[in-house]
Amino acid sequence: MADLKAIHRHIEEHEAEHVAKVQEFLRQPSISAENYGVRECAELLRQYYADLGCQEAELVETDGHPGVWACYDAGAPKTIVNYCMYDVQPIVGEEWYSPPFEAQLMEKPPFGKVIINRGAINSKGPYRMWLNALQSIIAVEGKLPVNIMFTAEGEEELGSPHFPQIISKYQERLRMADACLNLGASQNQEGKVQMSLGNKGIVYTELECTGREWGRGPQQYDIHSSFKAVTDSPVWRLVQALSTMTSEDGNTILIEGWYDKVAEPSQEDLELVDRLVDTFDDRVWKEILKIERWIDDIEGRDLILKYLYSTTLNIDGIWGGYTGPGTKTVLPHKATCKVDVRLVPNQESRDIVLLMRAHLDKHGYSDIQIRRLSGYEWSKTSVKEPVVQAVLRVYEQYGVEDVIIWPHMGGSAPMYLYTREPLNLPSVSGGLGHGAGAHSPDEYLVIEGNDKVAGLVRAEQSYVDILYTYAEWPEEET
Amino acid sequence: MADLKAIHRHIEEHEAEHVAKVQEFLRQPSISAENYGVRECAELLRQYYADLGCQEAELVETDGHPGVWACYDAGAPKTIVNYCMYDVQPIVGEEWYSPPFEAQLMEKPPFGKVIINRGAINSKGPYRMWLNALQSIIAVEGKLPVNIMFTAEGEEELGSPHFPQIISKYQERLRMADACLNLGASQNQEGKVQMSLGNKGIVYTELECTGREWGRGPQQYDIHSSFKAVTDSPVWRLVQALSTMTSEDGNTILIEGWYDKVAEPSQEDLELVDRLVDTFDDRVWKEILKIERWIDDIEGRDLILKYLYSTTLNIDGIWGGYTGPGTKTVLPHKATCKVDVRLVPNQESRDIVLLMRAHLDKHGYSDIQIRRLSGYEWSKTSVKEPVVQAVLRVYEQYGVEDVIIWPHMGGSAPMYLYTREPLNLPSVSGGLGHGAGAHSPDEYLVIEGNDKVAGLVRAEQSYVDILYTYAEWPEEET
Repeated sequence: MADLKAIHRHIEEHEAEHVAKVQEFLRQPSISAENYGVRECAELLRQYYADLGCQEAELVETDGHPGVWACYDAGAPKTIVNYCMYDVQPIVGEEWYSPPFEAQLMEKPPFGKVIINRGAINSKGPYRMWLNALQSIIAVEGKLPVNIMFTAEGEEELGSPHFPQIISKYQERLRMADACLNLGASQNQEGKVQMSLGNKGIVYTELECTGREWGRGPQQYDIHSSFKAVTDSPVWRLVQALSTMTSEDGNTILIEGWYDKVAEPSQEDLELVDRLVDTFDDRVWKEILKIERWIDDIEGRDLILKYLYSTTLNIDGIWGGYTGPGTKTVLPHKATCKVDVRLVPNQESRDIVLLMRAHLDKHGYSDIQIRRLSGYEWSKTSVKEPVVQAVLRVYEQYGVEDVIIWPHMGGSAPMYLYTREPLNLPSVSGGLGHGAGAHSPDEYLVIEGNDKVAGLVRAEQSYVDILYTYAEWPEEET
Repeated sequence: MADLKAIHRHIEEHEAEHVAKVQEFLRQPSISAENYGVRECAELLRQYYADLGCQEAELVETDGHPGVWACYDAGAPKTIVNYCMYDVQPIVGEEWYSPPFEAQLMEKPPFGKVIINRGAINSKGPYRMWLNALQSIIAVEGKLPVNIMFTAEGEEELGSPHFPQIISKYQERLRMADACLNLGASQNQEGKVQMSLGNKGIVYTELECTGREWGRGPQQYDIHSSFKAVTDSPVWRLVQALSTMTSEDGNTILIEGWYDKVAEPSQEDLELVDRLVDTFDDRVWKEILKIERWIDDIEGRDLILKYLYSTTLNIDGIWGGYTGPGTKTVLPHKATCKVDVRLVPNQESRDIVLLMRAHLDKHGYSDIQIRRLSGYEWSKTSVKEPVVQAVLRVYEQYGVEDVIIWPHMGGSAPMYLYTREPLNLPSVSGGLGHGAGAHSPDEYLVIEGNDKVAGLVRAEQSYVDILYTYAEWPEEET
């Protein structure tokens, strides 16, 4: 049996070093959208894996930013895959109280000391805490209780366009794993934990109507609007085409076959929803999002069901012609919109884009282009999986009172690459710790903590315990 | 009888001074959108009127940029009103071969010397040529053959929001005028002249759908698009609302009552159209505008009729949400579009905005705002008016071969303030000379000219002749 107390003590005794490591990782910029520091960050991460004692630790070249692959063979019976996104969002146009790549330690009531940096919570800060925890285990026990295959990408903020290349390259190895486990800071500011057992899929597209493709309207540039009298308008065409895609309220999708593959919620999902109804309070969402009324004024269980099981067609942005101040009289030669679709089981991104294409063709809009920019498939893991149960048990041991389990979340992530064909692994994220401000200024990670929210030491200890709990989980309990 | 030859000779002998005056006026910036040099330019213009010997010459304060009023009383039987726009378009984002406010004289084949400057053709260059012509008349004859009321505004490029204030202030005086006459450079690069006897009206609006006004969807900012599952979308709402306004092809307006006041073309208009059919070649438009096919593939007479007598609903611009590169998953809290309407007789801007409002209300979109940004009413003058005939006769005398007369143009201008209630004046523009590049880099005015296109001297001489031809036009000929 491992001496967990000794590992915990090791973490306590090496807190300063662990904080320094978090700062080091955060100070290395890795803005994927701007290719700022990305490869350097990949190198640093590779070195971290090598320092742990991974027998393999290498950069993985892709058609985009490099990934990192590493493998720690502990000779253990269980093997986990671990996911890392080492890239961060841009900081353009943001005003930071503390510079975004200096990783300064500051007081932030009621949490005590926090680190402020881009990526502090999403996701480099917690990721380095996870590596710190592994380091302490190895320092005390000589090796990890499970084998770990590390898979890291530097393009999550771009929609992971080349992550499939990385997973595909190591597919045969990854098949041998038992689960995908990703530990980080999952507490909210009150110390509550939300656990998500999956994600919706997404396909992000641009639809564009141009005079040139249409063969009508202005072919090359915006023209004087007095010619509208005799000239067709690509903007009106896009508007009319879009309008055929939804009901008048914009909420029911009228594209033929759209809902055909949508599955009913499983019995397990419905049981989780029943438990959610008791704990979930939509007023928190309303306050954060500044929403007064949900679609059709639904609430309670209906709201949760609609959030979880609705496929959506959303216009993220639309533009065309003159959009500055005042008046400029032009007939634009093109109009574009960004449309994202959230996919629920069993919708697949590929099918959905074909349905969109078929709809436009059928309505006479075959000239309107659909450009697929990125996509993730949906992902689901059963709450009964040992790796999930291991996380839940540790929460219990740590006295986390509210654990809110979502059968999946409305957002999207690349987890399908682990959970679906060909790997079919259960996947879960969890762990104590808190931070906030993802994609926003003054993003932070709590280092000190308080009686509700774990600081760095307690967070890392929880990762250690989860890892051992899973490693020791008896097969027959599943 | 005036000695026209002596006046012509005076112009020839003072060419250098006249060119210098054009340069002086052009070098004074007057970008209304940026309030750059506007008041200084108004002052300069006022001084020009005073230098002519106007008994009155004063700045007219408005709620925006100042106008200028001046009156030259020659004790003549006829009185004209003259319109001047002294403001120019911005130059932001443009690359000029020669600096936009240095009024450099350059060789530009096949025209010989030209002046390059913002406003060179639109409209300060030709306007100063007109004042030069008046100066030469006074120098030779001691006074002008007509009385002139000068009305100038510095906000034409903004849609003349305060010009009605100026006209209204001098309304009682302006009622005494016989015609509105505006001489400038009307030749195209082949020396042909297009004469327009009016304009369509325009009303320029912004339509906006916001979560806040609607009471649904995101109220304050764009939110994560995963919440589309339970949140209404202002962008979809705007798209659906717009789609009710036109037929599927975007060309027939489905707003109730829209076409009710549209008048049939008059007999005089139809006769002008018959003459247009012979001279008008739509290939020139197609080449300039980069259009391959007109609406419904119309051509010839049908094309001219549709261009002239169609009221339009045009989307000048549309925007909402994320419009940058790549993917950002947001559900926007608002969407906006700019919509301009071209008004044909007898549509009025006020009625049209009310019809739009009523349409939106009727379809349940009473939360969608309509902001009126600017507007002009339509304007028409009969070809039989002496002031029109005077211009045409001088074209004949100068051997201008192709004079293409449009009953009105598809564009819009503030001429309705002169031609309709309460002034009811005929109004025409004309004169020799050529320039191009309005609203574009390297805008130019021809100074030297060639065998087809008049240079500054010949242009100014044509203005003199038009003025005298009109002054001497017998009443009974009308």
